[in-house]
Amino acid sequence: MDNIKIEPIQFDNDSLQPRYIQLFQYIKDLIIEGRISTGEKLPAIRNLSNELKVNNVTVVNAYKQLENTGYITAKKGSGFYVSKRPAKDEKNNYFRTEDGKNIINFASASPHPSIFPTESFKECINEVIERDKGYAFSYQESNGFEPLKECISDFLNMEHDIDIKPHNLQIVSGAQQGLDIIGKVLLNSGDYVITETPTYDGALEVFKTRGARCVGVNIKDDGIDLIELEKKIRICKPKILYVMTKFQNPTTVCYSKEKISRLLQLASKYDVFIVEDDSTSEISFKASDRYSLKAMDKDDKVIYIKSFSKILMPGLRVGTLVIPKSLISEFTQSKYTSDISSSSLIQRSVDLFYRKGKWNEHTKYMKEIYKGKYEFMLSKLENLRKYNVDFKEPNGGLYFWVKLPQYINSKTLHEKCLERELLVLPSHVFYPNAHKLKNSFIRLSFAFCSIEEIKTGMEILEDIIKNSRADI
Amino acid sequence: MDNIKIEPIQFDNDSLQPRYIQLFQYIKDLIIEGRISTGEKLPAIRNLSNELKVNNVTVVNAYKQLENTGYITAKKGSGFYVSKRPAKDEKNNYFRTEDGKNIINFASASPHPSIFPTESFKECINEVIERDKGYAFSYQESNGFEPLKECISDFLNMEHDIDIKPHNLQIVSGAQQGLDIIGKVLLNSGDYVITETPTYDGALEVFKTRGARCVGVNIKDDGIDLIELEKKIRICKPKILYVMTKFQNPTTVCYSKEKISRLLQLASKYDVFIVEDDSTSEISFKASDRYSLKAMDKDDKVIYIKSFSKILMPGLRVGTLVIPKSLISEFTQSKYTSDISSSSLIQRSVDLFYRKGKWNEHTKYMKEIYKGKYEFMLSKLENLRKYNVDFKEPNGGLYFWVKLPQYINSKTLHEKCLERELLVLPSHVFYPNAHKLKNSFIRLSFAFCSIEEIKTGMEILEDIIKNSRADI
Repeated sequence: MDNIKIEPIQFDNDSLQPRYIQLFQYIKDLIIEGRISTGEKLPAIRNLSNELKVNNVTVVNAYKQLENTGYITAKKGSGFYVSKRPAKDEKNNYFRTEDGKNIINFASASPHPSIFPTESFKECINEVIERDKGYAFSYQESNGFEPLKECISDFLNMEHDIDIKPHNLQIVSGAQQGLDIIGKVLLNSGDYVITETPTYDGALEVFKTRGARCVGVNIKDDGIDLIELEKKIRICKPKILYVMTKFQNPTTVCYSKEKISRLLQLASKYDVFIVEDDSTSEISFKASDRYSLKAMDKDDKVIYIKSFSKILMPGLRVGTLVIPKSLISEFTQSKYTSDISSSSLIQRSVDLFYRKGKWNEHTKYMKEIYKGKYEFMLSKLENLRKYNVDFKEPNGGLYFWVKLPQYINSKTLHEKCLERELLVLPSHVFYPNAHKLKNSFIRLSFAFCSIEEIKTGMEILEDIIKNSRADI
Repeated sequence: MDNIKIEPIQFDNDSLQPRYIQLFQYIKDLIIEGRISTGEKLPAIRNLSNELKVNNVTVVNAYKQLENTGYITAKKGSGFYVSKRPAKDEKNNYFRTEDGKNIINFASASPHPSIFPTESFKECINEVIERDKGYAFSYQESNGFEPLKECISDFLNMEHDIDIKPHNLQIVSGAQQGLDIIGKVLLNSGDYVITETPTYDGALEVFKTRGARCVGVNIKDDGIDLIELEKKIRICKPKILYVMTKFQNPTTVCYSKEKISRLLQLASKYDVFIVEDDSTSEISFKASDRYSLKAMDKDDKVIYIKSFSKILMPGLRVGTLVIPKSLISEFTQSKYTSDISSSSLIQRSVDLFYRKGKWNEHTKYMKEIYKGKYEFMLSKLENLRKYNVDFKEPNGGLYFWVKLPQYINSKTLHEKCLERELLVLPSHVFYPNAHKLKNSFIRLSFAFCSIEEIKTGMEILEDIIKNSRADI
């Protein structure tokens, strides 16, 4: 049988996905769409790599991935053939959350599924279904399941000194939806939003889908630059100021108390709502004062977003907003229009998880795990200082913001890491516009990887940095 | 102890909520916000009804509701007192999905929780957690869990003659989110959308949050008025044409095959995307041809929304879109920005539910249940023809669209029904703009109520209509 011909793929060089994954997906799609049929033979590795002008390893890895996911079969001494369509109940399909799972992932800031409280949460789900029967699968109130809102008020009060009533909460399907709903309520086409620079790109995306214009303000060691901020507020008259006051993403900066007070004063003076996005403030490895904008928000100008993805499980798709009183009904309406309500079953199960004390128990456990990994990565990073690598110790959160030596930029480093199956986040993804620091940093997270993987990953990183210096 | 004074409430006369529910919520909020304290005595029923200028019954019912939900306690011979804050684990809280549960609800088109496949779905959830462990609580791919997409392709192919690949599907957190994402991808401020008149108000809300302008086209017995439609397409150059081709909401109209063909021709001619919203097409009580726009969509101009809320359970918050090839990546991106992904656990559980054959089994069961209730309500409705009530037999779907006699309009009827704890949907909610038919119809759904409740509800309805005629 003749080998089939694969039409040349256009690689996306700006993609965070390594080429072999791009190639894997390209061929997978050809198979799924029936453009390559069952039994057909794929080109030999050398031929395809010549044709596509890529490294052999890229093709090898793409084929390996296709084999692992059941799309092709290797016949010894003969080559690779398109498999019968994967049986529907084939088991390995179900474990795949993302392609390319063999990679060491310093980019993801999500906890690894192996440390999720799967068993105890399963018990809660079962108890809820026993207790509430079909009501666990009905629509929930759009603003959220009332008892869960009571738990979260408790939590925010105890853990964050945020003194609110359940009434002020809007349950959302994760923090990202919180951002989406904020955008819908507060932004119209042409409105301005001021963010920190650098900042979380997923927030910028939301603001842009509302037709808003985003303006960045530099961040200093104690928080956003207030002089630059006030100047830009005067010029732009923004509707929203979007900040992360604790372990800022990606810089890990924590705002000083003074900066927080002055920020609140500015918000009142210019009548701007502040959106305070908090996904990791609980993950602090050093006793320190607890303050957030929301905790000190006397004029009710702060919309606070609380994600539970990092301290519980990202797949729950449950988070919360704390809403200024004047906006509560608009938020409920907007949530309704967005998806009616968040999952009744999951809200009820999280509620029970909290009331049984499992929430506290688990977040303590997570913090221990994170702390061990933090300290391990920190020690390995210290070791890189000799190559002029620099960073601040965040003492919390889930990543390091690492300044690279001048002889290597983050895009190149990111690519070199990828070739060795290590994923790091280059800084340009956090800088929406041209910016002098755009390619000077990488963000390294220890959330997803095991100690063993961190060790290997950091060795690869050292090796690449060392060799880059030698290249000069 | 003196009775406390309740500040006069502003009743919202346009609200679908009865006054007693409005009063209930008003007092509940006063309690929650701490403006009335534990142990305080509420005004006597007669005093409060005098002061608020409402019927005694309104106050009685509001108090009853407050008592049922644990906010107040009746002391025999003495009056009503604010309770200690409801204990957090108080059981009745958990069963409350919406306030006012004693009402006979002909407005909701959701199945009743008692007929949900709770047990078999629970088994699937447990199997999934056993099998996938923490991966059941990880982020899922934004476009959806691949094996579930295979199941849904199967389903759409078998049940709806829609021939697509899993690749064309975008899993969403319910049909409402499907609409939201369609709006984000296709609509910008000032764009036009053409809809049927009357139509689903939740869709109009989405289009409006995108800043779009909605234009209605009348619907005839075999579907939208094509002459009026073409005229309006020429004038407005709409981005989207939004229709429901089977058991249209609220008119129950089914499109003829010819109309579907001609609609597709128009979409190609004027390069408009058609959004076909399908929540109830499976619920057909008469053998008939199966055709939808999407099934006949050769030019890939139709975005098809499939809700599973009516045939499975609304609280799953899982539905799907079928996306034209040219738009797939934009939809994935927009889903990511909206809420990253839909629940991994629920997607995996629905997948297993399908593969075990439970889905088919359950939808058959649902259809049987619905059919019984449909026929019962139909027989009771026939009985109202003598009062000049008119309607068409839809032979499927979940409601009747009932034309009222000239001597009573739907707003008045709706209010009179509410006074007797019967909820019907007046037609004005489906007519966004002034329209001559705005107050001529009611929508009666048999989805949520038991046969017993339908019997009682229809008796109340007959009584009110009969008396209204007598009033002339």
